[in-house]
Amino acid sequence: MKKPIAIQGIKGSFHHLVVQNYFNTDSEVLECMSFDDVVNSLLEKQTDEVVMALENSIAGSIIPNYALIDSHNLSIVGEHYLEIEHCLMALENQTILDIKEVHSHPMALLQCKLFFKAYPHIKLVEAKDTADVAKQISEQNIKGVAAIASKNASELYNLNLLAESIQTIKHNETRFVIVKRNNDEKNIEAINKVSLKFELDHKRGSLATVLNVLSDCKLNLTKIQSLPKIETPWKYAFFVDVTFDAYKDFEKAKSIMSLMAENFKILGEYKNARR
Amino acid sequence: MKKPIAIQGIKGSFHHLVVQNYFNTDSEVLECMSFDDVVNSLLEKQTDEVVMALENSIAGSIIPNYALIDSHNLSIVGEHYLEIEHCLMALENQTILDIKEVHSHPMALLQCKLFFKAYPHIKLVEAKDTADVAKQISEQNIKGVAAIASKNASELYNLNLLAESIQTIKHNETRFVIVKRNNDEKNIEAINKVSLKFELDHKRGSLATVLNVLSDCKLNLTKIQSLPKIETPWKYAFFVDVTFDAYKDFEKAKSIMSLMAENFKILGEYKNARR
Repeated sequence: MKKPIAIQGIKGSFHHLVVQNYFNTDSEVLECMSFDDVVNSLLEKQTDEVVMALENSIAGSIIPNYALIDSHNLSIVGEHYLEIEHCLMALENQTILDIKEVHSHPMALLQCKLFFKAYPHIKLVEAKDTADVAKQISEQNIKGVAAIASKNASELYNLNLLAESIQTIKHNETRFVIVKRNNDEKNIEAINKVSLKFELDHKRGSLATVLNVLSDCKLNLTKIQSLPKIETPWKYAFFVDVTFDAYKDFEKAKSIMSLMAENFKILGEYKNARR
Repeated sequence: MKKPIAIQGIKGSFHHLVVQNYFNTDSEVLECMSFDDVVNSLLEKQTDEVVMALENSIAGSIIPNYALIDSHNLSIVGEHYLEIEHCLMALENQTILDIKEVHSHPMALLQCKLFFKAYPHIKLVEAKDTADVAKQISEQNIKGVAAIASKNASELYNLNLLAESIQTIKHNETRFVIVKRNNDEKNIEAINKVSLKFELDHKRGSLATVLNVLSDCKLNLTKIQSLPKIETPWKYAFFVDVTFDAYKDFEKAKSIMSLMAENFKILGEYKNARR
């Protein structure tokens, strides 16, 4: 029997939406209250596949999730891009003037802060999950409280939409990845994108040399991010995504890179979700 | 008369601590409730210098602040690194068992979440500023509520420390920058670090070529971050920091780079705060 797919949050969350888009509308999910719990479900084999947000067009990379994938030696096996649209929802017959508190995830509260400037009577309260608040309002018939969550959540929990797309920056795309314990069943034919991590000394030109190799091997860079290694001054870790046409080109680069860079590591090999 | 220095937050905030460390313990500050307000104070000439957090060892770059500096054509004129230590504080004679709510900035709540797992009776509530909560508890003699803020804030507002260094990840360093409208009064002798922004097409090897120039000109890379341009597919913006020994080496790189890369821009020239 197929195991459920672990997500951060509950049904109706953006992670759930990714499962429905990437896998199947009816896919069973395991609802987790943190990314640590998501990863634990994978390590303890309650799940074989999980979904994690990895970067956002507004906030950039979600470094703690990179660290979770890296430190547990997990594999990215797929990616999915989703436009995040925050909606405000409450029980039927409630208007925004009835609302005294809005509960949501701190990130959602931050992204919608400007919208609430016009409603100074509303108190913003941190909650663990966007969709969970919607669920509780619905199940416990809570008046005076609204949730910020996906439109999906309003439908799932029978809530009334008070406002749509209330985030300050309208174009708010998040990149999610599908993660497994390993990538043993990979289909080399379909792979045209790879996520890499490597370390370099703070020596002039060291990164340029590595990028020259990638370029010579016909790999295209789609993301690069440096992160100083806190415990080791002047040592940097780099997270790099590359795309390519032929897997053999990547194999060539891999063999050179593993000699050139310290702690060279493949975080995932998968199909590029951009056209 | 010297104008005040604008900070995000109030006296006792981490931004205030940076002003005290970088300028002077007695420097006057203009307390702002958002980074937008900080930048507005500069544009409207209420201030000539402001302090902004720019990146964090846990969360990575604070992309919205990069965007504020870039879009208003401001100049970074200095940098300062600060270890963030979150403390829990309340009125005298209150113990943690008396505390029913903790109010703080969403980022501080996130960073200290694990600490509060042992105290499920405490409700976490979002507030605008870490130090502002401390001030209110003190001024309005609020019992049952604690603040998460700097040790500095507990001293300034006469609060009792209930716990120190409660953030989950102990080493939590933030890089702050000092920002002016322009960098007209720069002292070339002292400058050994520069923040750059440029754009490149998604063409194989384009970044490697640029980094080769930097390397050939004896510049050392200390940070690199790519950001897809949302409105232009396949076009990328790069934020890069470089250090060097001789300003003339940078000038040489600058003249080549401005020909090679699109929208090449200097975000700031300043003194490296690392030894």
